[in-house]
Amino acid sequence: MLRTHTCGELRLENVGNEVTLSGWVQRVRNKGGLVWVDLRDRYGLTQLIFEEGSTDEVILAKAASLGREFVVQAKGTVIERTAKNKNIPTGEIEIKVTSIEVLNPAKLPPFLIEDETDGGEELRMKYRYLDLRRNVIREKLQLRHRMMQETRKYMDSADFIEVETPVLIKSTPEGARDFVVPSRVNQGEFYALPQSPQTFKQLLMVSGFDRYFQIVKCFRDEDLRADRQPEFTQIDCEMSFVEQEDILDTFEGLTRHLFKTVRGVELEEVKRMTYTDAMRFYGNDKPDLRFGMRFEELNGLMQGKGFGIFDQAEKILGICAEGAAEYTRKQLDALTDWVKRPQIGAKGLVYIKYNADGSLKSSVDKFYSSEDLQAVANQFGAKPGDLILILSGDSAAVTKQMSELRLKMGDDLGLRDKNIFKPLWVIDFPLLEWDEETGRYHAMHHPFTSPKKEDIALLETDPGAVRANAYDLVINGVEIGGGSIRIHDKSTQSMMFTHLGFTPEEAKKQFGFLLDAFEFGAPPHGGIAFGFDRLCAIFGGSDSIRDYIAFPKNNSGRDVMIDSPSTIAEDQLKELSIKVEIAEKTK
Amino acid sequence: MLRTHTCGELRLENVGNEVTLSGWVQRVRNKGGLVWVDLRDRYGLTQLIFEEGSTDEVILAKAASLGREFVVQAKGTVIERTAKNKNIPTGEIEIKVTSIEVLNPAKLPPFLIEDETDGGEELRMKYRYLDLRRNVIREKLQLRHRMMQETRKYMDSADFIEVETPVLIKSTPEGARDFVVPSRVNQGEFYALPQSPQTFKQLLMVSGFDRYFQIVKCFRDEDLRADRQPEFTQIDCEMSFVEQEDILDTFEGLTRHLFKTVRGVELEEVKRMTYTDAMRFYGNDKPDLRFGMRFEELNGLMQGKGFGIFDQAEKILGICAEGAAEYTRKQLDALTDWVKRPQIGAKGLVYIKYNADGSLKSSVDKFYSSEDLQAVANQFGAKPGDLILILSGDSAAVTKQMSELRLKMGDDLGLRDKNIFKPLWVIDFPLLEWDEETGRYHAMHHPFTSPKKEDIALLETDPGAVRANAYDLVINGVEIGGGSIRIHDKSTQSMMFTHLGFTPEEAKKQFGFLLDAFEFGAPPHGGIAFGFDRLCAIFGGSDSIRDYIAFPKNNSGRDVMIDSPSTIAEDQLKELSIKVEIAEKTK
Repeated sequence: MLRTHTCGELRLENVGNEVTLSGWVQRVRNKGGLVWVDLRDRYGLTQLIFEEGSTDEVILAKAASLGREFVVQAKGTVIERTAKNKNIPTGEIEIKVTSIEVLNPAKLPPFLIEDETDGGEELRMKYRYLDLRRNVIREKLQLRHRMMQETRKYMDSADFIEVETPVLIKSTPEGARDFVVPSRVNQGEFYALPQSPQTFKQLLMVSGFDRYFQIVKCFRDEDLRADRQPEFTQIDCEMSFVEQEDILDTFEGLTRHLFKTVRGVELEEVKRMTYTDAMRFYGNDKPDLRFGMRFEELNGLMQGKGFGIFDQAEKILGICAEGAAEYTRKQLDALTDWVKRPQIGAKGLVYIKYNADGSLKSSVDKFYSSEDLQAVANQFGAKPGDLILILSGDSAAVTKQMSELRLKMGDDLGLRDKNIFKPLWVIDFPLLEWDEETGRYHAMHHPFTSPKKEDIALLETDPGAVRANAYDLVINGVEIGGGSIRIHDKSTQSMMFTHLGFTPEEAKKQFGFLLDAFEFGAPPHGGIAFGFDRLCAIFGGSDSIRDYIAFPKNNSGRDVMIDSPSTIAEDQLKELSIKVEIAEKTK
Repeated sequence: MLRTHTCGELRLENVGNEVTLSGWVQRVRNKGGLVWVDLRDRYGLTQLIFEEGSTDEVILAKAASLGREFVVQAKGTVIERTAKNKNIPTGEIEIKVTSIEVLNPAKLPPFLIEDETDGGEELRMKYRYLDLRRNVIREKLQLRHRMMQETRKYMDSADFIEVETPVLIKSTPEGARDFVVPSRVNQGEFYALPQSPQTFKQLLMVSGFDRYFQIVKCFRDEDLRADRQPEFTQIDCEMSFVEQEDILDTFEGLTRHLFKTVRGVELEEVKRMTYTDAMRFYGNDKPDLRFGMRFEELNGLMQGKGFGIFDQAEKILGICAEGAAEYTRKQLDALTDWVKRPQIGAKGLVYIKYNADGSLKSSVDKFYSSEDLQAVANQFGAKPGDLILILSGDSAAVTKQMSELRLKMGDDLGLRDKNIFKPLWVIDFPLLEWDEETGRYHAMHHPFTSPKKEDIALLETDPGAVRANAYDLVINGVEIGGGSIRIHDKSTQSMMFTHLGFTPEEAKKQFGFLLDAFEFGAPPHGGIAFGFDRLCAIFGGSDSIRDYIAFPKNNSGRDVMIDSPSTIAEDQLKELSIKVEIAEKTK
């Protein structure tokens, strides 16, 4: 090795040792006859010292001439520092250097390699290899590494077998868009990259693998929104001979294990909530439970009092923000403007202040008496000092608006601490959702999800009311994963395909192998997949997944560092039996 | 759960327990009033018993009617067997069943779900999910799982960080053919799937990650030979501030760890051999060291004695097969026919028998005296009872032929025991190899491999003689992995691209990001990649990798189970701005 120690390991007990270190020059301080160089590697920072008189002149000059990010190798003796630095583990020693070699010089980096950098997003992406040098970024990827190792430890110890499913699979029109791969050997035919290993993991259950897991890359050719990536990583699992409860238990265990080993957090019990309750009380199928502010429906209390807007509204919803009665007129106006922005789309905002002196003041005082307002306050169990915020309108719209307002109030009142974790199972999702565009029902989860037995009859009469054996894990308002108990018999699966608008021929062409497999002894089974990038971001306390991915793509799906995608040679296209043909109108 | 225990865990101490088991019907034996059912799952086999008189009649009839591979759930009491089966861990008990439920019936499988099956390759691939049910196949994938977990344990404990590199990267014309992925958003442009994460792992070294690993899918669109797969898995690693010795040590450690934990084998010291010696003594850069039979060059001893074929040969090579002097005339004729097959291509085979009585007998006695033959025997250190086999001809051809003959003799004499492991580092590979077709030198390993310092001057005068800091790990004649110390400075890398026939523009277009990165402080680094599928096969004692891959493709790159690749919809092609165009001549 080109070093005897890393830059993070020398301590007082090493004083007197002859050592060789290699690393990057973080900083050079030159006080004339005295030069200090901070040498950095992944493991830490060690101070090198060069002193006129005791250090050879040539070496002293060399040290003084080192530039930022030069790669150097230094030999010398560990000595005790006179001025100790308590902030770093190596701060009690330094290296009195006897020889130094530049292993590779460096041009000045285009941005500062420091925790706080001056580089913009685009620049840092182009030079991602330099951005990754920053401790704050590298630590995120080390967290990810730790998460992967601990996930595997837990799954392995629970008898799950890690199986790699294929990346070159078959395109299916259902769901999001596939990325496809032209086959050279099978002319005119294409592989697809998996959106998830769903059918393969189900086949592994048919094979009797009993418990499968994989940490696996998946692919979706979607129009990229902020914080979506065309390739992403899942913790993917499937279990046989289980009911929903077994899966929730197992993966609550995984979540608990990860929090304990990676974050040192003992997770509290994971609460459960039906989809219906989540929508009703939080307007959202992934409620953030770090704070309350549950919705109250106020139709009964607030309609029929002469306030036309409320009287005509399909739904009136309110939340109570504890201790926010002090909000000024200016703050309330700002909130009103906020809910009226097109992204939220409310027509206005009604408030009731429960003042510290016990009096009630609202923006609609002329329609509601003190008693009316008190009744509303009582509905929330409000106390003096609280602020009630009310929206009204079309049921679906007001639910969504109130959900946004609730989250904003949580932010504004500092109730969304990144170091507090409130996990939640949302259960009993609807099986189907109506798609306005295509005018038919779509599988809310995917076509392999089983309906609840007691709801099957509703498939004919009220498909939208059928509940599925489907569940999501939500942490702090973020959907971490979801899964379901699957259909495991051919007739139910065929019926489901029919309900989803497949002809028997289409079902056979796309999923014939699965329908066949179900006839050869398929066990009851179910599973779950966690979004690994997002799970890492949650653990790291970040809102964005991008820094938890070593080489992410930008919002146009482009890797600006390697400049990909790119054109390819005509020969290559010809070999693949394809031709580029850009439609006129989109040129 | 639908079970209290698995089918592999009940023992005598469980006698009296009320249990619920779920699994597959392996076998039903019906002796009239007495029915036994073997219930199988991944964990084992448990016998269920149904007895007229004590078992309810309906249940008895149900048991008798169960078919092979039905999925059933049985409840009952653990009892001690009268006739114990010592061959299985659950053989001392059986379950007296009180209720049984068919969870899913099964059609008769198209082949036997037994260790020895009657299913042909094609049929087993189409119903791979049934093939995977066979213990012998599932165990191979469990071995693979174990290998993955132990690899990660070792790498993690050695401070390697697992980093996922992207799957959607950029096509480079160098090397094998890329699979490409049309980009919908970036019209007319394509991603490529990685043949290896080579440049990304080098960038991670530039980023200071210091030690990287990944168990990663790679892709090569090659014409498939037997036992090649378009997607395959690598253990991919890279280390900074290292010399060749550090890498060999680390990965010898990994290999040793895997053998110990997965196979219970304490590996002997990993020998080292230069490429030159491997070619000279074994005619092969991946010699099988489970047996000797080193080549001896016999030009000196056997030319000039009047045997025209040898006199005109560029090279005469011999091996000595210990104890094979008893080979009959018929066996020797068969060997001669074998080397003359077109796949081997030798013109003939000369032998010298060192008989047990000390006499020497050869197929060319009329040209060589007893003393001549004795001199040849002495060259090998042969003993009475040995058989010397000799081939001659053009140097390259005879080397290859003799390598094949040596391996065949190893097989014939039972010297290639699958449970003996002889690992070897082959080092000092040539940097370049001449390609007749393109009339230029190619990188033998890849363009990022560093030449040995002392050989750099030869690049101008004798490029083929330049040795690289490159190494392969070979076990039992199979190349398990290879790697190199990389170039880490822009000028050497640019020079290498020039030698490989890149124009500066091409080099910049394809690898500009790497050349740029080398200017911002790249540390000396090197790495290695192990072929994981093959490593698993070696550990499992198999010649074929196919059964170590859950869902392999056939020799036309086709997954016959899901029927992929397949055609895709016109709309999909249009969205991707491509068109299928099959060239006339190949239609």
